Amino acid sequence: MSQLLPPHGGKGLVCCLLEGAELEAEKKKAEGLKKIDISNLVKGDLIMMGIGGFSPLNGFMTKADWKGVCENFLMADGTFWPVPVTLDTNDEEVKEGDEVALVNGGEIYATMKVTEKYEMTEADKKWEAEKVYKGEGEDSQGDFMAKAMEDHPGVQIVMARGKYNLAGPVKVLSEGEYPTKYAGVYQRPAEARKIFEERGWKEVAALQLRNPMHRSHEHLAKIAVDVCDGVYIHSLVGNLKPGDIPAEVRVKCIDALVKGYFVEDKVVQGGYPLDMRYAGPREGLLHATFRQNYGVSRMIIGRDHAGVGDFYGMFEAQTIFDKIPHPEEPGKALLCTPLKIDWTFYCSKCDGMASLRTCPHGKEDRVLLSGTKLRKGLSEGTPIPDHFGRDEVLEILREYYANLEDKVEIKTHKAADGQ
Amino acid sequence: MSQLLPPHGGKGLVCCLLEGAELEAEKKKAEGLKKIDISNLVKGDLIMMGIGGFSPLNGFMTKADWKGVCENFLMADGTFWPVPVTLDTNDEEVKEGDEVALVNGGEIYATMKVTEKYEMTEADKKWEAEKVYKGEGEDSQGDFMAKAMEDHPGVQIVMARGKYNLAGPVKVLSEGEYPTKYAGVYQRPAEARKIFEERGWKEVAALQLRNPMHRSHEHLAKIAVDVCDGVYIHSLVGNLKPGDIPAEVRVKCIDALVKGYFVEDKVVQGGYPLDMRYAGPREGLLHATFRQNYGVSRMIIGRDHAGVGDFYGMFEAQTIFDKIPHPEEPGKALLCTPLKIDWTFYCSKCDGMASLRTCPHGKEDRVLLSGTKLRKGLSEGTPIPDHFGRDEVLEILREYYANLEDKVEIKTHKAADGQ
Repeated sequence: MSQLLPPHGGKGLVCCLLEGAELEAEKKKAEGLKKIDISNLVKGDLIMMGIGGFSPLNGFMTKADWKGVCENFLMADGTFWPVPVTLDTNDEEVKEGDEVALVNGGEIYATMKVTEKYEMTEADKKWEAEKVYKGEGEDSQGDFMAKAMEDHPGVQIVMARGKYNLAGPVKVLSEGEYPTKYAGVYQRPAEARKIFEERGWKEVAALQLRNPMHRSHEHLAKIAVDVCDGVYIHSLVGNLKPGDIPAEVRVKCIDALVKGYFVEDKVVQGGYPLDMRYAGPREGLLHATFRQNYGVSRMIIGRDHAGVGDFYGMFEAQTIFDKIPHPEEPGKALLCTPLKIDWTFYCSKCDGMASLRTCPHGKEDRVLLSGTKLRKGLSEGTPIPDHFGRDEVLEILREYYANLEDKVEIKTHKAADGQ
Repeated sequence: MSQLLPPHGGKGLVCCLLEGAELEAEKKKAEGLKKIDISNLVKGDLIMMGIGGFSPLNGFMTKADWKGVCENFLMADGTFWPVPVTLDTNDEEVKEGDEVALVNGGEIYATMKVTEKYEMTEADKKWEAEKVYKGEGEDSQGDFMAKAMEDHPGVQIVMARGKYNLAGPVKVLSEGEYPTKYAGVYQRPAEARKIFEERGWKEVAALQLRNPMHRSHEHLAKIAVDVCDGVYIHSLVGNLKPGDIPAEVRVKCIDALVKGYFVEDKVVQGGYPLDMRYAGPREGLLHATFRQNYGVSRMIIGRDHAGVGDFYGMFEAQTIFDKIPHPEEPGKALLCTPLKIDWTFYCSKCDGMASLRTCPHGKEDRVLLSGTKLRKGLSEGTPIPDHFGRDEVLEILREYYANLEDKVEIKTHKAADGQ
């Protein structure tokens, strides 16, 4: 029997992805159905429902689910869930009872039986935005919505949604480009669980990554390796902000880092298909919730985890775990707990990696580097301080930026040529 | 309400130390009682019973307790306890019903109502030694007792005990030299709990120390600081083997280390009055059991914790926690859990502290130093490798050894003078 945490919801892994003859038949049927366009973010949610990453969800949320989740983290049946997982549309014609095909970039990702269509007024969206995205940080004070509409990508996404939400169970038809584009990294929860079980792991920590892995992340992962059975370095391979490092480059960096600086059988690398929601503390809860489905018991939550600007308190994504409801009914409470760690860095007086909880020294002793300066260093060759990152990783990033520069230059030339 | 773990046993802190008028009266009465000599080890046990460190014990174990503890870690009433806490004597005259005074070094430490006197034959002692001290290491195979009588101080202590055990409740009259000799370090459980509560700690890790604290211990403590609310650096201030560093020197080292390399409000230093039992895995359990009384929830258990020679497997003191019974009745199970960490060291390729779980590099990259070489370095000035210890700590130890050399030289001179 597996020693891993059971999937969230008490129903095992709920996988909506069809296979074999059933898949072929549904695909054929889908061609004839009314098409509903979905965003990249919704596509990611669908694939997660397909592979069991969003267990026990088997479709998009009803109004009652949406309301309960926004208000107090509970779906209508009392199961914990941290963020709304909804499907929006501006389609006036689609109605309850319809069966529809969900389309992104010309590909049908799922079919769905519409069991409920509910209006999302501006007031509803604003209510969702405030309930889900408003935090305790400075930018959340005063006129939160005004600031958020300027600077909060999560809130911008909510407010840009369609006039209706469609609820209903889905049949997922495709995992899109993930299994091929990220072969060997993209994993279904069952695959990750199988690896953990084969290794006899029980206490598995997950490190959430959406940026290249430098020594500060390495330190977080190694603390986890020391106190758990192993660490799951789990990268977002969905969409990020423009200018962020693509997943394939980040994966290459992690490979180099694990190869040179980790005991390999204490680490598993994987990728998951979600886009960032930029939901701060609630996103931290989501990270723990779907990680439980992957077999993870401890979610590493650092300082300002999934933070956006100054909307959240530095430890809000840690303390929110102490505030969520824990329904008593079996399966309904989140079981994956946070592994709370503070900001980490190299300190020359400590003579090694340290955190704000362990290092008593000053700023002048610490190797600190803003993302902007790091980017400048990597792309322009200005020096990157010793101990910030591993050479093997920095080399991969330098090469990435060099090629990027080439491309920009080529574009510039073309522009100069009058295109 | 305190967020700390309750004391072991479900009866709060059971403190047998008398105070005020009651103490004075009992002292007077004790003068007239029959005297029973006790060992230093028993004196430590008594003081722990006095201050609540051995809650729920309020006296020495009956034969049924002794048997249950040796056999399956349970006292007669079903409460978990890891090692026998018994009072031995060769006194033929003392009998059940007697009230006796327990004496060490001319001082009366307690009075005791003898409720049971039971014989401890050679066979009983041997049975105890095998049940409690025999492990999975190489030296425990084959003729364990023969090897143990040569090389196992714990077994030697058991086999050297008297012919009888006396059981019964105690009234403790003195904490001995601890409150004065180790003022500011020696702590009662209630004092430690008060500090933890004032700091709002809930998850408190303890680091057991009986040797000077170098960077490997610092690393253990810092991992604990990162993943718990704080660390209790808890030194044995009772008796050690001859040649070990005295507690006052070790305490000075810890002070220097905490001052220079820790965030002070994440650390509490304390001392406890026990002698080493050298009981390997069972001693690890004892460390967790009395630490629970001090308010600790996570006991750091490293590689070969409390190990003796090759009597125990490297991780036996960690895995034993998975094998002990967990009585369901409230208070009877051990609640303090192990924080299992592997062997730690500085690695030049890792560019910092690492453990066998996190470092993939070779011996040649690691700073490893035997106790013998360290001692030689400190006392004779041979070099101690970089990154092994903090300068401030090594300086204190060098000074200690220098003074020790002086003393040895003085002794030698006197001997040469014919004394």
